[in-house]
Amino acid sequence: MGLAIISPGRDPEAWIENIKELDAEIDIQVYPNIVRKEDVEAVMLWNHPKGLLSEFPNLKLICSMGAGVDHILSDDSIPAHLPITRIIDERLTISMTNYVVMGVLNYHRQYLRYQEQQAKKVWDMSSPEIEINVGVLGVGELGGDVIEKLRLMKFNVAGYGNSPKKDLQYPYYYGEQLDEFLSQVNMIICLLPLTPQTENFLDKDFFNRCKPGSYIINVARGKHLVEEDLLEAIEEDQISGAMLDVFLNEPLPEEHPFWINDRIMVTPHIASVTNPSAAAPQILSNYYRLLNQKPLVNVIDRNRGY
Amino acid sequence: MGLAIISPGRDPEAWIENIKELDAEIDIQVYPNIVRKEDVEAVMLWNHPKGLLSEFPNLKLICSMGAGVDHILSDDSIPAHLPITRIIDERLTISMTNYVVMGVLNYHRQYLRYQEQQAKKVWDMSSPEIEINVGVLGVGELGGDVIEKLRLMKFNVAGYGNSPKKDLQYPYYYGEQLDEFLSQVNMIICLLPLTPQTENFLDKDFFNRCKPGSYIINVARGKHLVEEDLLEAIEEDQISGAMLDVFLNEPLPEEHPFWINDRIMVTPHIASVTNPSAAAPQILSNYYRLLNQKPLVNVIDRNRGY
Repeated sequence: MGLAIISPGRDPEAWIENIKELDAEIDIQVYPNIVRKEDVEAVMLWNHPKGLLSEFPNLKLICSMGAGVDHILSDDSIPAHLPITRIIDERLTISMTNYVVMGVLNYHRQYLRYQEQQAKKVWDMSSPEIEINVGVLGVGELGGDVIEKLRLMKFNVAGYGNSPKKDLQYPYYYGEQLDEFLSQVNMIICLLPLTPQTENFLDKDFFNRCKPGSYIINVARGKHLVEEDLLEAIEEDQISGAMLDVFLNEPLPEEHPFWINDRIMVTPHIASVTNPSAAAPQILSNYYRLLNQKPLVNVIDRNRGY
Repeated sequence: MGLAIISPGRDPEAWIENIKELDAEIDIQVYPNIVRKEDVEAVMLWNHPKGLLSEFPNLKLICSMGAGVDHILSDDSIPAHLPITRIIDERLTISMTNYVVMGVLNYHRQYLRYQEQQAKKVWDMSSPEIEINVGVLGVGELGGDVIEKLRLMKFNVAGYGNSPKKDLQYPYYYGEQLDEFLSQVNMIICLLPLTPQTENFLDKDFFNRCKPGSYIINVARGKHLVEEDLLEAIEEDQISGAMLDVFLNEPLPEEHPFWINDRIMVTPHIASVTNPSAAAPQILSNYYRLLNQKPLVNVIDRNRGY
């Protein structure tokens, strides 16, 4: 009995290495070369082919190889009784927060403006800071850390989520209070989980409800954003610009207009990359817990979607 | 009896406004129109003409209009008995720290690389972070805050100063331990006070003692840096690049090679700009303390130079 890695398009080598280092005897099969299907008790998944899991009769555990599980939940064929776990890695949170803080500071301190001034040899000290009030969509593990760090750096920050929360140190809005939230902020960071409710959240209607000139950072999932609506909102100056790390189609196709829009910064899904050396022990630990019939950790709630 | 503002080349209007708001009756004269010289008991200075203060027979207090006092101490004609104060403003610290963190993150997360990739429509996710260990030269008010914030963001940080210090939460080196300090770090931030000992601190010898490929951020004073030595060290790849906010001559002359060096980012002395609305009350408070023979606050130690 053993594990299977199913992550088409991503090199599994570092994962195998890290797992073997922890348990040299473990049985791992790697997609597409999984021949002993009945031996697979647990799968490690990243963008697996939909429907594939029905081929494993003894499957008992599904582990996401990253923090997100939308790539798993979007497969309707997965039986409801199978537990799904995700990675919670401090380095994932640190990387994500550092990327977002970089985006916030570059906008607040006008990094692009000084690059342009340098290109023209212009020395202009006027108005060195753009006043910003930051709004974070999604206040979970990642959003919560972004808020904490930005507050330590003395930014005004508000959060928005889908349910009431108590004892927060910052202004928080939820559900129907979106307009109230958006009226407080002009720098919006999307860290929502991807669920049917949050897909296409950043659409024309959303942008029209923002304060004119708001800036967008999307580091969650490409599907949160209606890409043509963002282009239109930027064209109309309703949105002043955006920094995007995730896209509907990745790699971003060569003909995509984001590449050549000078108010959009494109990064290739690098805000936060799962590190196998941190993630592999979490997956193995859950695998052993399964074998020893102990409670699993970092199990997601399928109803909430995260 | 009253105050004089001496800040040639800078508009004093916001300062006058802020002072008048706090004390509408106060007597302020502004250089170069100071006619009642015997009425001047306190001066507010930023880059005053050397030797000028000897014209004020009743001068009792010298206030820097910023955090630095090197522009005052470099005037040998100032009598040793006159107290000198400086501005300590939380906003100065916040702005400085945010600028430095921006520089650190842009290097660590390779902002320039992704700008170049975008220009070429290249999607390359490999090696998303450059490993850095940050060294901060100068661990006073500003350096201390930079270190604190970078540590909260989980960077490895070490400090360097000129005297032993106790109970620090981070590795600290001083005096002769410069080589030991430099062997630990590859991102060096200069926040030293400008004194005769620290002038030209960042010179050829310093760069040669750095780890090859180290990156430099100078936000202290232009005189800390031997500009041609930096250009040479970058040319030789001993130093990988630099972000500079301060220069020997400001504004940076049009013919200066920094403008066109693609491994040097130039910003026009905007890392931290004194805000008159925060600084004017501090100067007035010291002026009243003088009149009421109370102890002054934020007085600098001339022997230390800060």
